[in-house]
Amino acid sequence: MESPADCLFCRIVAGELPSERVDEDDRALAFVDINPSTRGHTLVVPKRHSSGLYDIPPEDLAACMAMAKRIAASVTGALGAEGVNLLNNTGRAAGQVVFHFHLHVIPRYGGDAFRNPLDERAGDAGDVAAAAEALRGAIRGG
Amino acid sequence: MESPADCLFCRIVAGELPSERVDEDDRALAFVDINPSTRGHTLVVPKRHSSGLYDIPPEDLAACMAMAKRIAASVTGALGAEGVNLLNNTGRAAGQVVFHFHLHVIPRYGGDAFRNPLDERAGDAGDVAAAAEALRGAIRGG
Repeated sequence: MESPADCLFCRIVAGELPSERVDEDDRALAFVDINPSTRGHTLVVPKRHSSGLYDIPPEDLAACMAMAKRIAASVTGALGAEGVNLLNNTGRAAGQVVFHFHLHVIPRYGGDAFRNPLDERAGDAGDVAAAAEALRGAIRGG
Repeated sequence: MESPADCLFCRIVAGELPSERVDEDDRALAFVDINPSTRGHTLVVPKRHSSGLYDIPPEDLAACMAMAKRIAASVTGALGAEGVNLLNNTGRAAGQVVFHFHLHVIPRYGGDAFRNPLDERAGDAGDVAAAAEALRGAIRGG
């Protein structure tokens, strides 16, 4: 995909904007989030532009995940984290703000301020079996 | 890794416990979360046991991510989702409850009840540059 001229993360990849880089390979780049949710909160992005999970090529996705795993292991030793969350937001309805695929790697510490949304389930979110049937149909058809 | 006899997701993979399966390949299985945060909330797990992000083999991780991407595309059409969140919790401090690696695929709809934790940043989460330096040291050393 063509890199949009105004894409913030493409400009970070190109070195046109500064960032605190922590890891890099041929396909992916990791840098610390300038507005961290916890200490060491890092973003992993593909070097080639993709807007989100829907359009990222499988090889770029695998490279980002492998880098996220490496960083997760490092934060345990380097920062004393006790766990880690990976989070991706795809689409404005999911909270995506920068439309260049990115994985949040969020080190977790006992008593930190990060709120895990799964701790507060919505309760009834519709019929599980009916949702599963709709998904199976779409996956078979797709 | 040996499959623990009491692992909930190993028992689902083995078919010893029921689940609403939506996708499956050699390495990964996807089934609808029985306590969904939104309609169609799905879990993707590796068939071989791994406890979390720290110990999952790269090929199982890549397979789970590829399946999550496929499901994300399907929920848009099948369920009318407008976006999707991927979430992994590794470690009790990160909210992990079942200690078999899993990716949450959470379809998002305008006005749904899912709270994205990144919408409520903790504010000051320590010095970005210092955290980056600690991470770079650990990654170079690792």
